[in-house]
Amino acid sequence: MSKKERSEVVRSDDQELDHMRHSCAHMLAQAVLDMFPDAKLGIGPTTDNGFYYDFELPRTLIPEDLDLLQEKMVKIANERQTFERREEPVDEAVEFYTKAGQPYKAEIAADLKTQGETTVSFYENRLPEHYKGTNGAPGDVRFYDLCRGGHTENTGKTGAFKLFKIAGAYWRGDEKRPMLQRIYGLCFNDKKELNDYLMMLEEAKKRDHRKLGQELELFTFSEHVGPGLPLWMPNGAAMVEELEKLAKDVEFRGGYKRVRTPHITKGTLYLKSGHLPYYKDSMYAPMMIDEEEYYLKPMNCPHHHMIYAATPKSYRDLPLRLAEYGTCYRYEDSGALFGLMRVRALQMNDAHIYCTEEQFEKEFIAVAQMYLNYFKMFGIEKYVMRLSLHSKEGLGKKYVDEPELWVKTEEMVRSAMKKAGVPTIEVPDEAAFYGPKIDVQVWSAIGREFTLATNQVDFAVPKRMGLSFVDKDGSEQVPLAIHRAPLGTHERFIGFLIEHFGGAFPVWLSPVQVRVLPVSDKFLDYAREIEAMLFEKGVRVEVDDAAESLGKKIRSAEMKKIPYSLIIGEKEVADNTVSVRNRKTKEQVVMGAEEFAVKLFEEIQMRSL
Amino acid sequence: MSKKERSEVVRSDDQELDHMRHSCAHMLAQAVLDMFPDAKLGIGPTTDNGFYYDFELPRTLIPEDLDLLQEKMVKIANERQTFERREEPVDEAVEFYTKAGQPYKAEIAADLKTQGETTVSFYENRLPEHYKGTNGAPGDVRFYDLCRGGHTENTGKTGAFKLFKIAGAYWRGDEKRPMLQRIYGLCFNDKKELNDYLMMLEEAKKRDHRKLGQELELFTFSEHVGPGLPLWMPNGAAMVEELEKLAKDVEFRGGYKRVRTPHITKGTLYLKSGHLPYYKDSMYAPMMIDEEEYYLKPMNCPHHHMIYAATPKSYRDLPLRLAEYGTCYRYEDSGALFGLMRVRALQMNDAHIYCTEEQFEKEFIAVAQMYLNYFKMFGIEKYVMRLSLHSKEGLGKKYVDEPELWVKTEEMVRSAMKKAGVPTIEVPDEAAFYGPKIDVQVWSAIGREFTLATNQVDFAVPKRMGLSFVDKDGSEQVPLAIHRAPLGTHERFIGFLIEHFGGAFPVWLSPVQVRVLPVSDKFLDYAREIEAMLFEKGVRVEVDDAAESLGKKIRSAEMKKIPYSLIIGEKEVADNTVSVRNRKTKEQVVMGAEEFAVKLFEEIQMRSL
Repeated sequence: MSKKERSEVVRSDDQELDHMRHSCAHMLAQAVLDMFPDAKLGIGPTTDNGFYYDFELPRTLIPEDLDLLQEKMVKIANERQTFERREEPVDEAVEFYTKAGQPYKAEIAADLKTQGETTVSFYENRLPEHYKGTNGAPGDVRFYDLCRGGHTENTGKTGAFKLFKIAGAYWRGDEKRPMLQRIYGLCFNDKKELNDYLMMLEEAKKRDHRKLGQELELFTFSEHVGPGLPLWMPNGAAMVEELEKLAKDVEFRGGYKRVRTPHITKGTLYLKSGHLPYYKDSMYAPMMIDEEEYYLKPMNCPHHHMIYAATPKSYRDLPLRLAEYGTCYRYEDSGALFGLMRVRALQMNDAHIYCTEEQFEKEFIAVAQMYLNYFKMFGIEKYVMRLSLHSKEGLGKKYVDEPELWVKTEEMVRSAMKKAGVPTIEVPDEAAFYGPKIDVQVWSAIGREFTLATNQVDFAVPKRMGLSFVDKDGSEQVPLAIHRAPLGTHERFIGFLIEHFGGAFPVWLSPVQVRVLPVSDKFLDYAREIEAMLFEKGVRVEVDDAAESLGKKIRSAEMKKIPYSLIIGEKEVADNTVSVRNRKTKEQVVMGAEEFAVKLFEEIQMRSL
Repeated sequence: MSKKERSEVVRSDDQELDHMRHSCAHMLAQAVLDMFPDAKLGIGPTTDNGFYYDFELPRTLIPEDLDLLQEKMVKIANERQTFERREEPVDEAVEFYTKAGQPYKAEIAADLKTQGETTVSFYENRLPEHYKGTNGAPGDVRFYDLCRGGHTENTGKTGAFKLFKIAGAYWRGDEKRPMLQRIYGLCFNDKKELNDYLMMLEEAKKRDHRKLGQELELFTFSEHVGPGLPLWMPNGAAMVEELEKLAKDVEFRGGYKRVRTPHITKGTLYLKSGHLPYYKDSMYAPMMIDEEEYYLKPMNCPHHHMIYAATPKSYRDLPLRLAEYGTCYRYEDSGALFGLMRVRALQMNDAHIYCTEEQFEKEFIAVAQMYLNYFKMFGIEKYVMRLSLHSKEGLGKKYVDEPELWVKTEEMVRSAMKKAGVPTIEVPDEAAFYGPKIDVQVWSAIGREFTLATNQVDFAVPKRMGLSFVDKDGSEQVPLAIHRAPLGTHERFIGFLIEHFGGAFPVWLSPVQVRVLPVSDKFLDYAREIEAMLFEKGVRVEVDDAAESLGKKIRSAEMKKIPYSLIIGEKEVADNTVSVRNRKTKEQVVMGAEEFAVKLFEEIQMRSL
């Protein structure tokens, strides 16, 4: 990865931008109070792309209100109001907000008191020293908010912002509390960044995987089957199959062995593995079979561990790499389900590498290399790995209670990542319960961020599960386990690919690779011959035999994003050629039917982009 | 299939043989009464290979008892006792058996009375007219039994029989009733048949799929995962993958489209499909998700139907063939579980063909042809299809209540089977609830019978599920659905293949295809080169680098039934050759390393036997 690429990585902890966004939230609240003096204020945090603020208002907002509020915010920015901090005893803050008719703010202040705070901070917006407008005098307080801070120096330094969405939100996310109105705004360093983001949103809408998934007949949901349980239609299943073939090829070459394990299992296994104590919220309720509790598996690991344990192992058997495209079932709140991105059944490009401590680094780097190769193959140019670490406070609760092993393993991972040359961000307190976790984040072609896959190092469960090997010296040792899933889950990865390619997949991955378009019925026989010739070679090919004009047939193939359309008319039949229309270039080239087949076959074999 | 082969098909309804077996049961009971005059008799039916009889005895039998009883039976046979029928009023039979201290027989007679019988029949064994032995006089009654009959003319015409097993069996299979002792016997037309069968049993023991499955490390069970839930170890998973690749190739060529569907689903789907009303006993208890009942899928059909229904269909879309190697979960009593043969999770070579009535025959014959091709490929020489029909009595209970459609569809199937030229046996009252069913029965290389796969014609569920297509004339029609699964389930098919090949699978299917055996460590580098060269071509190859003699290495490769061992010594390194030891011929041939690779690759590609 070049330096340039690295610097492009968006740092979610970019402090200056965060201050701009936070300042915008205050400006929005000031604008709303100007419009609705009786507005009751909720909270106004920053987001990944801007900010929002929640309000209780005398009426429901309409889209046009956003324009008015945006105008007011621009005016506030132009006034270059300063942000000034002042502290007050917490009791006074509660009393003040109560009297001021701001019950939500009063509640927040009261909570801070409960948490042991004696003073709280406010940030005031004041008109600047040299203010010359008609809105008041220099030093006038235009707005204040209970706030921890970070802000910009003044309201003029808030980059480029734009209000863009109104939504309802329960106070404190609690459906028993009042529903407030939430206004979302975007905020970026400058106009270009903002416009790029808006264009990205526009493009993302066009590339929405749910919309394209339906148009291209990739997958479907059924109310009779249940939410979060996608059914792969033939076109989507063709992609699933290609991804599996790819993973199996790559994993065979990487020295992995495949296994297959059932989807249900006795609760005792998950007690032993630690999933029931640490992971139960994501599991489904048990099912009774012969008076025992069985669970749908939320992960494949314990089953792979059982296969490891099925025969005695020696150091000669390590590293042992067990791979399975295993289907797991995880509970997600029905409100959180989202197309293929958040589902209840997920088929994962899973594998577990059992190795010694000495083998760890080489294995881990090989895994990182596998990721990088996949990124190249799919044209993923921007990516980062987030290394999630443990926290001391979480030991024995969120994390297995092995303080020294945590430190040691985290250092092993850190060092391996460095050697692999993969850009890494460290995040405290987000590890898996059995070891440090690496979330692989990638950016789609239109610049949207996705968490695709997870890598984990497990120093705890193998011991819990009684896994061991006989070392060179005859002693019994516990292996380390690396959990890895470079292609993530079919669901999320295909969701990502749909957006990334806008549905126009590389040929090898396209559900239909070639469509043959006879100009009229007269040429249908030859079209069928071409179809049979390509089909024989394993190409996913079809003939458009509808009684339509060529123009309509071409448009239809374009709508379906089919890589190659072969137009068949009088000349093609006479010359034993095809007119190849390329989806990318929209150009048409005449070539021999066999010549096309050879080129196509090579493109598919190479898995070219 | 030749005429000869057809005639070899064992007819389970071979009446003469059945009479011989039934007669043997009476002879066994007579022998037991001779040995234990107080024995209380249970029942004595025939089996697929002989007969058994249940007894309450004063002591537990030991294996040596079988020899004594066998001797007694031979004596009875030599006496050529006749079987003579007599009838009695049922009340007298009950009274008689009660007085005679035969409570089980009395119970059977009483049951017959409850069922409305007024008389019952007995069969008496009498010494024949010209009897000259010391055991009594001609005409003496040696034994009688409450019995419906058929018997042989006399005890001398009972072919070749052999007692071979003692087991415990609850009276009437009810664990609350007394445990009786069951004696099993074999009975065949002649000594040769009996010996063949005994040899087959001996061979089957050696080829037991559970034993070989463990020795070859194909699969394992874990008490933590649960009974009936096999875990495929790398060697078994390699076979699973090869079978899937085969099926996918064959199905692609056959114009099938692949789909993928989840393993859990809302109960409403199974209400709609009819599985809950007709198939609930084989389903697991539901699981609650968001206050709705979800079931593990026992079949893939309803999901495929949902995919069919996801987009509007016209006659141009038919036939539509949707294929999935889908995993289903079916409840089996834990006592009925048996290795891979009877499991609770099964991955099925499933597909559903949606077609019009006109298309049915062609599609059905193509499916039959696919079976025949598979049989050839796996060296299955003997097979038969059992066509299970409905019964009028079952309409509205076991079978959907559509009397005319049943008759029509059964006739369509009968006619298609005839055209396909597949030997067929018709069996009444064993259809699926939605249409006639075809069970495919095959015989392994050692002559044991397996039910491998099931084919079904479904004229009811598509209608229930609201599936339709717009016909040429614009009218809305309901498609027929053919359910087919030529390779059955991975579990049962691999279980069959293990026995069929005795673990010595064809190369393409072998978990390890080649093992390289360096004569000593000096040749390890060259051995690794050969390994790398073959691995590069996708061959499953390994090096035996243990510090053992060549003889031991060869024996170890033989134990693991590896098709090719490549022996590497000084000469091979010098000449860039390999000494190829063939598992089948046990011969050793020297050839160029590349030459071997080319031959091997072809053998794998062709999937040769």
